[in-house]
Amino acid sequence: MSPSRLQFQLDAQASGSRARATTFHTLHGTIRSPLFMPVGTQATVKAQTQESLHESGSQILLANTYHLLLRPGPDVFSKLGGIHKFMKWPGSVLTDSGGYQIFSLPHSREMTEKGAVFQSYVDGQRILLSPELSIQTQRAIGSDIMMVLDQCIPSTADEKAARAALQITQRWAVRSLAAREDSPQSMFGIVQGALYPQLRRESAEGLMQLDFDGFAIGGLAVGEEKQEREDVCELTAALLPADRPRYLMGVGTPLDVLEAVHRGVDMFDCIIPTQVAKRGTAFTSRGIVELRRSVYKFSEAPLDPACTCPVCSTHTRAYLHHLTKTQEPLGWTLVGQHNIHFYHQLMREVRQSILEDRFLPLYHHWREILPIEDIDHPVTHPKRTSTKVEMVGDYELCGDPPAIRHRISTRTVCTTPQLDATTESQIVQHLRQPADSPPLVVWDTHLDAAATALAVILLYEAEAAKGHVRPLHLVSFSDDLSPLRLALHHKRHFPYLRHGAADTLIRRDVWESRYCIGLKWTLVHGAAVDAQAPAADVLLPRA
Amino acid sequence: MSPSRLQFQLDAQASGSRARATTFHTLHGTIRSPLFMPVGTQATVKAQTQESLHESGSQILLANTYHLLLRPGPDVFSKLGGIHKFMKWPGSVLTDSGGYQIFSLPHSREMTEKGAVFQSYVDGQRILLSPELSIQTQRAIGSDIMMVLDQCIPSTADEKAARAALQITQRWAVRSLAAREDSPQSMFGIVQGALYPQLRRESAEGLMQLDFDGFAIGGLAVGEEKQEREDVCELTAALLPADRPRYLMGVGTPLDVLEAVHRGVDMFDCIIPTQVAKRGTAFTSRGIVELRRSVYKFSEAPLDPACTCPVCSTHTRAYLHHLTKTQEPLGWTLVGQHNIHFYHQLMREVRQSILEDRFLPLYHHWREILPIEDIDHPVTHPKRTSTKVEMVGDYELCGDPPAIRHRISTRTVCTTPQLDATTESQIVQHLRQPADSPPLVVWDTHLDAAATALAVILLYEAEAAKGHVRPLHLVSFSDDLSPLRLALHHKRHFPYLRHGAADTLIRRDVWESRYCIGLKWTLVHGAAVDAQAPAADVLLPRA
Repeated sequence: MSPSRLQFQLDAQASGSRARATTFHTLHGTIRSPLFMPVGTQATVKAQTQESLHESGSQILLANTYHLLLRPGPDVFSKLGGIHKFMKWPGSVLTDSGGYQIFSLPHSREMTEKGAVFQSYVDGQRILLSPELSIQTQRAIGSDIMMVLDQCIPSTADEKAARAALQITQRWAVRSLAAREDSPQSMFGIVQGALYPQLRRESAEGLMQLDFDGFAIGGLAVGEEKQEREDVCELTAALLPADRPRYLMGVGTPLDVLEAVHRGVDMFDCIIPTQVAKRGTAFTSRGIVELRRSVYKFSEAPLDPACTCPVCSTHTRAYLHHLTKTQEPLGWTLVGQHNIHFYHQLMREVRQSILEDRFLPLYHHWREILPIEDIDHPVTHPKRTSTKVEMVGDYELCGDPPAIRHRISTRTVCTTPQLDATTESQIVQHLRQPADSPPLVVWDTHLDAAATALAVILLYEAEAAKGHVRPLHLVSFSDDLSPLRLALHHKRHFPYLRHGAADTLIRRDVWESRYCIGLKWTLVHGAAVDAQAPAADVLLPRA
Repeated sequence: MSPSRLQFQLDAQASGSRARATTFHTLHGTIRSPLFMPVGTQATVKAQTQESLHESGSQILLANTYHLLLRPGPDVFSKLGGIHKFMKWPGSVLTDSGGYQIFSLPHSREMTEKGAVFQSYVDGQRILLSPELSIQTQRAIGSDIMMVLDQCIPSTADEKAARAALQITQRWAVRSLAAREDSPQSMFGIVQGALYPQLRRESAEGLMQLDFDGFAIGGLAVGEEKQEREDVCELTAALLPADRPRYLMGVGTPLDVLEAVHRGVDMFDCIIPTQVAKRGTAFTSRGIVELRRSVYKFSEAPLDPACTCPVCSTHTRAYLHHLTKTQEPLGWTLVGQHNIHFYHQLMREVRQSILEDRFLPLYHHWREILPIEDIDHPVTHPKRTSTKVEMVGDYELCGDPPAIRHRISTRTVCTTPQLDATTESQIVQHLRQPADSPPLVVWDTHLDAAATALAVILLYEAEAAKGHVRPLHLVSFSDDLSPLRLALHHKRHFPYLRHGAADTLIRRDVWESRYCIGLKWTLVHGAAVDAQAPAADVLLPRA
């Protein structure tokens, strides 16, 4: 390989870890790693000003070629002199290739050797995204670092499919590099190969023969388990040359990022810090704080006492709780601003510890803190009652196998978590829309014993395991929680309730999946449909 | 009356106009009028930071007692030391009384001499909003200026209803004042009386016998014509004492505000600057700029070349156009920030001109500029064709009276703008929700000749004329505009199309009412329902 355009320099290597600190130079400045890149999908990071991104220490923003190709279009960037001038961003920009977005669209695409054909969501036009068009677009955008067009597949794909994707990615890498022509922009290759070590090796070796300025690890965070991701990340990072930046695409939570730094990765991007901010989730030095919780209603404490960001120096948890509960845009802005600052501050601490060769203790410290829920206000789960309840409200348990019956009307409540075929296929079709679509809203107007609602949740989890899905917001309306309360006392007979979501829903009126980010279930008290509830895309029939 | 708590001072009075410049002092600082108060409904101005509000020169924010009573609740303000500390706002705050919100809720309220009973949208609790509760809540909030609880009625109410409302408002004013007790907060009375000069006089005289620190003109901007509003405003302002601030509630556009300054009013509040920012409407020194228009796609010009706000000194129209088209929250923030700055800058110029006794020429200058659409890029309407078209696509005009018929299936397209009773009552019920509810989304999946869509628009306009309505977003889906194009060539036969909305829709894919703020109609090309379209609250049946 010829020397990197990035004038890459390895500053330090941690002892007892693969973690490293590096410095390199883009067309817009000096970059120090490890670093996190906030995602500016459409040439704006959700609800953040460029000024606040700059002040928080953002060095590089990621922008999405797929979205920018469609709107505002490459001609706007060409005419106005590139994305930096367009959005007035003084720092560096990395553009992805559009591959990830194309392959997460289930419809309206055809894959050939030439590229992928898809239909524009802006004007319905059919577009062939080839390596050449991707690079031309990234050249027009004028990013500092361009990514090759790759073929993304679920990380759980079988070996044959994974090998085919890897081979086409290698051929497209050659074409992407050629399409750069005389541009001074840097370009990264992307290692694919799903969860197969041998394929990851073949992919890395193939790409290393080409003249890339850095390497990305692709095809992770798309369906695999955390442990699998970490293993493949470690293995792949070790295959990559020591004198180029290593970038793990689309990862992750602060903990995921920390784990990958430990495994030798330098760069990260993820929508998580701004996405979870919208629902009031904050990462702090005292664990994960869910600002919706009423425990913060009167809290005069800052969000994170150890944080120096403008939000923590100004506002109270009480105000952020209020903005979250009222879904005010300022809440999204402020919590997102803190979260981005938190990622950057973590990366700065990590870098400093590597330079001073004390990374491992720092790693162990943060590894304990990061996954915990709010340390200072732990969530307490109410104690279980041991006496069996046979009746709640107007509902009773009767029959063998036991059923839940309304005592007056004698109607039996459905306790089979099943959807009819039409509803199921309707939901599946909706879920296959792009992951950055607004949440699919499903109304469950008859909560009963939550069997239908749980069927939706199980369906979502199954689809999410297969690959990329759109967020889903399930809204149940109920003016009588008795049948569900009764059923929860008898989980042995109603095993679908072992899932745990319904327990949380009853306790807090809201449940959010920890595993499937984007899956949310809320309870509206009152049978009548409430004007405050988000409007439905899908209405569940009564079981 | 005893001396005002506000240490009011009349700085200057314009020649040939009732416009005046005043200075007064709240618990949080010196206020100079004329001034505009941005609306911070829930202790936050939509999508704006307190820092940017302060920098733009906001002197007073308005906060809504009704919303803050429900969430976060007065106990939060009591415990945390008032709204200034809660939201970290260094300037002054005025709170309304909750009257306006209560009376714009059509359901779940009962009016008695005691107060108004309504149901909380947060927890369903029934609450009696009495003058005493309103003032207690405003005391807990700790605003600088409190408003009495008044009874709001449509400005078009008959004289008997208007007189009754005025009389109860007078009795409630006495109770509100008593409920202030020893608080150092100022309090304004509210002149009611709909459009009846005699009632306005009675109301003002009654209130002037009480010890208020200022007076508001209420019950305007709720259904009357612009000219009526201006006449009543002028008449009422002239009735009020010269040594107290005069506040016109809920008004208006920059032009409305200018007209009212000319008529002797000092203070204004309105949601318009942030509300219209969401759809990319900006007020500028070159007229009203609709940032959605594609004429700005490549524009490197600032939004307003004469403006010194951070948005105009940083960003291009091209970037703001892009953020508006992609509905990014940053677009809302930036355009709102500019609009608020524009109002304040206009008020500062007006004040300076009054102090220098050159208000009238400034008034005439702005009165010409403010209502114009973008001066530099005027909207051009395509020329009408004079030859009559009898066929468009697969549709033809036939019969007498003429109908529009699909040539192949021979289906006749509906050209009667009518809704079935169920749909109509469903929409009306939705519309009667609070005006600050999210827009009601109505899907029209069969545009045909737009008869059903126009029926919705006419229904909305009729309801809006009766009083306060919620915003409405009508989304039509069509893969064949031929029947509508054909009908538009023959408006003589299809008089419902004289409305003009359909012409604009076909030309621009979007129409927004100039008269009913909040009424919007967009066209989605393609018969299939599009994931990008907002989810439907109401689905129109095919006519």
